[in-house]
Amino acid sequence: MTIATSTQVVLASRPTGRPTVDNFRIEQAALPATPPNGVLLRVLYLSLDPYMRGRMDARKSYAPAVEIDQKMTGEAVAEVVESRHPDYRVGELVLAPTGWCDYAVIDATGLRKVDPALSSPSARLGVLGMPGFTAYSGLMLIGQPKAGDTVVVAAASGPVGSLVGQLAQMAGARAIGIAGGADKCRYVKDELGFDAAIDHRAPDMADQLAAACPGGIDVYFENVGGKIWQAVLPLLNRFARVPVCGLIAQYSGADENVDDRLSVTMRQILTKSLLVRGFINYEFADEHYPEFLRVISDGIRAGRILHKEDVVEGLEKAPEAFLGMLEGKNFGKVVVRVATA
Amino acid sequence: MTIATSTQVVLASRPTGRPTVDNFRIEQAALPATPPNGVLLRVLYLSLDPYMRGRMDARKSYAPAVEIDQKMTGEAVAEVVESRHPDYRVGELVLAPTGWCDYAVIDATGLRKVDPALSSPSARLGVLGMPGFTAYSGLMLIGQPKAGDTVVVAAASGPVGSLVGQLAQMAGARAIGIAGGADKCRYVKDELGFDAAIDHRAPDMADQLAAACPGGIDVYFENVGGKIWQAVLPLLNRFARVPVCGLIAQYSGADENVDDRLSVTMRQILTKSLLVRGFINYEFADEHYPEFLRVISDGIRAGRILHKEDVVEGLEKAPEAFLGMLEGKNFGKVVVRVATA
Repeated sequence: MTIATSTQVVLASRPTGRPTVDNFRIEQAALPATPPNGVLLRVLYLSLDPYMRGRMDARKSYAPAVEIDQKMTGEAVAEVVESRHPDYRVGELVLAPTGWCDYAVIDATGLRKVDPALSSPSARLGVLGMPGFTAYSGLMLIGQPKAGDTVVVAAASGPVGSLVGQLAQMAGARAIGIAGGADKCRYVKDELGFDAAIDHRAPDMADQLAAACPGGIDVYFENVGGKIWQAVLPLLNRFARVPVCGLIAQYSGADENVDDRLSVTMRQILTKSLLVRGFINYEFADEHYPEFLRVISDGIRAGRILHKEDVVEGLEKAPEAFLGMLEGKNFGKVVVRVATA
Repeated sequence: MTIATSTQVVLASRPTGRPTVDNFRIEQAALPATPPNGVLLRVLYLSLDPYMRGRMDARKSYAPAVEIDQKMTGEAVAEVVESRHPDYRVGELVLAPTGWCDYAVIDATGLRKVDPALSSPSARLGVLGMPGFTAYSGLMLIGQPKAGDTVVVAAASGPVGSLVGQLAQMAGARAIGIAGGADKCRYVKDELGFDAAIDHRAPDMADQLAAACPGGIDVYFENVGGKIWQAVLPLLNRFARVPVCGLIAQYSGADENVDDRLSVTMRQILTKSLLVRGFINYEFADEHYPEFLRVISDGIRAGRILHKEDVVEGLEKAPEAFLGMLEGKNFGKVVVRVATA
């Protein structure tokens, strides 16, 4: 099969503050010939994740920035169309860092295969993929919830937060979710079964959170920052654990209406013997990925772990869907259906 | 022996910002009769420590505030003058929370005895006491220095910092000390043998620190906060550990000239997978105090661990000495000689 060109989404310019669709450009690119050990992939599902916002900036982070005029980075579930690697056959599905595109040629060494018998393929981008492992590793390895603990997580209807709460409850802890709007809160409380759900848009959000946590907070899974952190901070118990996996509220600059005093937070860290630990899920992958896949796929099969996808149709919709996700307009894990298997 | 009254230092008023001698008052107080299981103690050495600054404020901390007109809290090495407890005999030395006074009657249950054969009695307030165990537990249990790591500590000529650096070197790490003034820096570098000492009063302190840490910082033992933290933050390596045992720079209010943005620090915690952990030494005491006493007393005997005391003569000098310590005017562990054995 010969595919000469790929449609891809490139970074047209760096955002100043909140990004817009003008920061992206859709274009055609010539595909190279498939090299030895390489594969030609047809992207079925592209994952959109908050961390990609960081890649749009030039400043140093844990991964290099995307260069201007280069393809946006991202993970996908893709089908092997042509293979020059002995371990991958045409028609197999793989997880691959294809970036935002419909076809890609990459070195296949180390690509994870996607077993359609284990789950729907797109789940490997969410509950059984990077977001799921972020929830699992941050909560279980850093947060270490115990029976009777109170665990709080924001973006609770999203792929990370929804799993954090469900895993917390499986560990015997209470799960309090924070989400945006009545629909998401209803989903978190009534469908996912969290002990409470709080709408972060409510003017008395901090009071509601305090009321939902009469015994204080033992684990706060930080993926937002900003005003949520300020509401959580006074409620943290001695020896509380705070895995920090994201700060979506400050990715496009700090909110001037929110207390941003380091000295106040440091005093709480000191006087309450808090543990605050930033992490990137893959630091734990070698040791814990197999157990993660087993625990979560067992949980899904047994109906104890639920997950929700927000499927966007067509690669050309990726920029708009990504921007919406940064503002919480998605409902569940955002995946772009680029092609049908 | 009958002692009817005690001389004590009480909290006369709460400081607003930087405390002054007017926040203290020296007065006589009647001593109660020694109750069953109690002892009457004659204070030989009183310890002055930065944490006491927090006790002067009304706000909630890990320990209750000192009430107005009540005796300042503190640890002492004291001699048993009268005993109604079967485990303690007249003439024995004990470590006891007597507060700032010359005589005290307290329940003797659980008091640690001071063995004069092990060390000079006053050392049990410093290198072999709470400050020493703070250094030991924070560095070894949270900081976990490995061979080749770079460890940075401020207040490096003080009882905590000086031990942090020496223990770091015993673990095979490089030790970089920050101290105030040429004399202290010389002591840290030439006498204690740190790999480098940096004067925090130097205008180019941050540049000097960067030059002394060409491979970045793996452990920063935080006891100061403020501008030192801002100099350390950009130098922290991935997976760096930050035990937080004190924030002396902000005990009397934040310095307006220092960057106090939480969002900047949180971003570093996230992108570098930093561990920031507040602690109070006694959370580790049950499990680790015996090993601490053994390691440090062995180190002192072998000449591998040095320590320095700043002895103040007379209880009436305690307020002034305490205020001086908060501004770094002391040189070594501050103890007040209240009486001679």
